[in-house]
Amino acid sequence: MDDRMIPLDAETKAVEMPEHHRDELRLWLRLLTCTTLIEGEVRRRLRESFDVTLPRFDLMAQLDKAPDGMTLSDLSRRMMVSNGNLTGLVDRLMASGHLDRRVSSTDRRAQVVSLTEAGRAEFRAMAAEHEGWIAELFADLTPKDQKDLMRLLAKTKGSARRAIVGDAS
Amino acid sequence: MDDRMIPLDAETKAVEMPEHHRDELRLWLRLLTCTTLIEGEVRRRLRESFDVTLPRFDLMAQLDKAPDGMTLSDLSRRMMVSNGNLTGLVDRLMASGHLDRRVSSTDRRAQVVSLTEAGRAEFRAMAAEHEGWIAELFADLTPKDQKDLMRLLAKTKGSARRAIVGDAS
Repeated sequence: MDDRMIPLDAETKAVEMPEHHRDELRLWLRLLTCTTLIEGEVRRRLRESFDVTLPRFDLMAQLDKAPDGMTLSDLSRRMMVSNGNLTGLVDRLMASGHLDRRVSSTDRRAQVVSLTEAGRAEFRAMAAEHEGWIAELFADLTPKDQKDLMRLLAKTKGSARRAIVGDAS
Repeated sequence: MDDRMIPLDAETKAVEMPEHHRDELRLWLRLLTCTTLIEGEVRRRLRESFDVTLPRFDLMAQLDKAPDGMTLSDLSRRMMVSNGNLTGLVDRLMASGHLDRRVSSTDRRAQVVSLTEAGRAEFRAMAAEHEGWIAELFADLTPKDQKDLMRLLAKTKGSARRAIVGDAS
């Protein structure tokens, strides 16, 4: 980009920026709006129906997929949250009887956390309800719309990944 | 939903949940992944290129669209952040000379903030760069892909809005 760091007024910008780029910006803002709208509603319903935060639900969802448990660093990487934020969350779920913690059998410095029976049962009840909410939020999309959207989002994900890797190299 | 609150094990759940609902869950997770991926990269580039946080960029973007300025409550509603979080951000941007603040001419209890000349010039330089990043992140999508994705996301937004309003009434 040759115009890096040069301030432009709105009209100049509208002329110099290819129409193409503004389309992509609109697309990104719409993607962001959809996600924010749905995530906010899921957060609200989790709180109202189960008095549960979204990070807590996400952590239990990760562990539900890992019957042998996960280390804190695996969880941290999967959930894209810091180890510090995770520790408090794990401590609270230990105290409430939802999680067990043990020393890893392969690395004695690592701790493995897993859902207790009660934790798993509670998560699955919430997950069933959550799945219904998502279906309701996407209800206007036909099966063909869903299929097309899946494909276009896969392409978007691939495109973004390539740009991110390219920028880092 | 008749199965509300009944814990299900994974196999039971796979049988009892209509395939349809799991498709929508996958769609939601993919939408969330795309947004998280792109937002994370934008956040990283804003920090590295301009030493600016995403909330600060978003606040300046709102004000760039409002030449007469906006009240704090308008900003708070638009950005979906609390008035408290906004106040600190506004104070820092005042201190650095990016924002002006004055009493509203229509409501003497309300304060109106707007970009200074320098704030606007700096925002536009960042915005031009940001637009290029977004184009790069979406580069693999053809114009037809973009058009289709815009349409499907508009439908998703409408669908979610209807579900949210329906739930509140």
